[in-house]
Amino acid sequence: MAIETHVLEVRTRGNGHVLDLSADLAGCLGAGRVRDGIVTLFVVGSTAGLTTTEFEPGLANTDLEALFERLAPRDGDYAHEATWHDDNGHAHVRASLLGPSLTVPLVRGRLVLGTWQQVVLLDFDTRPRRREVVVQVMGE
Amino acid sequence: MAIETHVLEVRTRGNGHVLDLSADLAGCLGAGRVRDGIVTLFVVGSTAGLTTTEFEPGLANTDLEALFERLAPRDGDYAHEATWHDDNGHAHVRASLLGPSLTVPLVRGRLVLGTWQQVVLLDFDTRPRRREVVVQVMGE
Amino acid sequence: MAIETHVLEVRTRGNGHVLDLSADLAGCLGAGRVRDGIVTLFVVGSTAGLTTTEFEPGLANTDLEALFERLAPRDGDYAHEATWHDDNGHAHVRASLLGPSLTVPLVRGRLVLGTWQQVVLLDFDTRPRRREVVVQVMGE
Repeated sequence: MAIETHVLEVRTRGNGHVLDLSADLAGCLGAGRVRDGIVTLFVVGSTAGLTTTEFEPGLANTDLEALFERLAPRDGDYAHEATWHDDNGHAHVRASLLGPSLTVPLVRGRLVLGTWQQVVLLDFDTRPRRREVVVQVMGE
Repeated sequence: MAIETHVLEVRTRGNGHVLDLSADLAGCLGAGRVRDGIVTLFVVGSTAGLTTTEFEPGLANTDLEALFERLAPRDGDYAHEATWHDDNGHAHVRASLLGPSLTVPLVRGRLVLGTWQQVVLLDFDTRPRRREVVVQVMGE
Repeated sequence: MAIETHVLEVRTRGNGHVLDLSADLAGCLGAGRVRDGIVTLFVVGSTAGLTTTEFEPGLANTDLEALFERLAPRDGDYAHEATWHDDNGHAHVRASLLGPSLTVPLVRGRLVLGTWQQVVLLDFDTRPRRREVVVQVMGE
């Protein structure tokens, strides 16, 4: 049993940017020796989250942002903003709702994703950000 | 330390069908030798998700669907549908929000679920589907 | 490779109480010998969930509760309540949406959290509760 830790460093536009992590993940997994096990992804920070989606422009550029805008509007009232004179209260609650972690089984060297199912980072912050996604591979 | 990979094949009615996976999970765990560790579940595809709930008819047949209908209405406007002449934009964003993975500790041969807490699959697609849920058991 | 299982017993006020688990987690990890691996957290029960947030009063005492009140209002109609003469339908659907599990990589003895990112329990039930959070540490 082995543990391999990778850190993806990605740049986002913020503001709900949906970033496809597939190529970065393939790079991590191709470089390692673990063939079967669990891949745990975790985004550092409290204004971004991870999930999967069919990565196509309609969902990635429009529908996911519209969903989160309905759930936690950008111009809503947030105590976080009143306290810290900040503008990203919506980004914080959206990120908490989506969650920072994702776990994907690795079977015979392949993540068990569907054909139209990509691992994505959603960055809700109100400015471009540099993000770290920790990718922990555990198995054999 | 051992890794055991199971694939549950289930049939759903789609349209928000909440499927109790308890019996299938018990079958996987009963067949294996791992007693302590982590059980990672992952549903393949981008229009379904996993979580836990008290599996009773009120929540499973009515309340969870009402929640997701409020968050992402079936007859809302979705760019995904305009692009692909599809009808399941709501299913995609609901699935991304809920998430495809769930991780449950296994302690002395038992998942650490509450008495009224079952592992469930929610299928948001607009037609009956055959789904694969990968169950990865890692431990000793 | 080793597995260490801890059970945090915490008391909550219910009603959306956001509880910072940082000190409890540090206690678990400090007591163990695993330095690199995965920390899986799971809250037992179907009316609470886990996530991360910047634990400050605006988000913890106001904004997260306002988010969930918008998504699943306390005084909405829930079939769960009609069936069981209960008052916590909103608590159940909120908990299913947020999810009971969280997985955080452990690297050189430290959880890879951001500086302003704490692991929190949200208890949506309508009364104070005693909760069990299982913390499973697997690695080496």
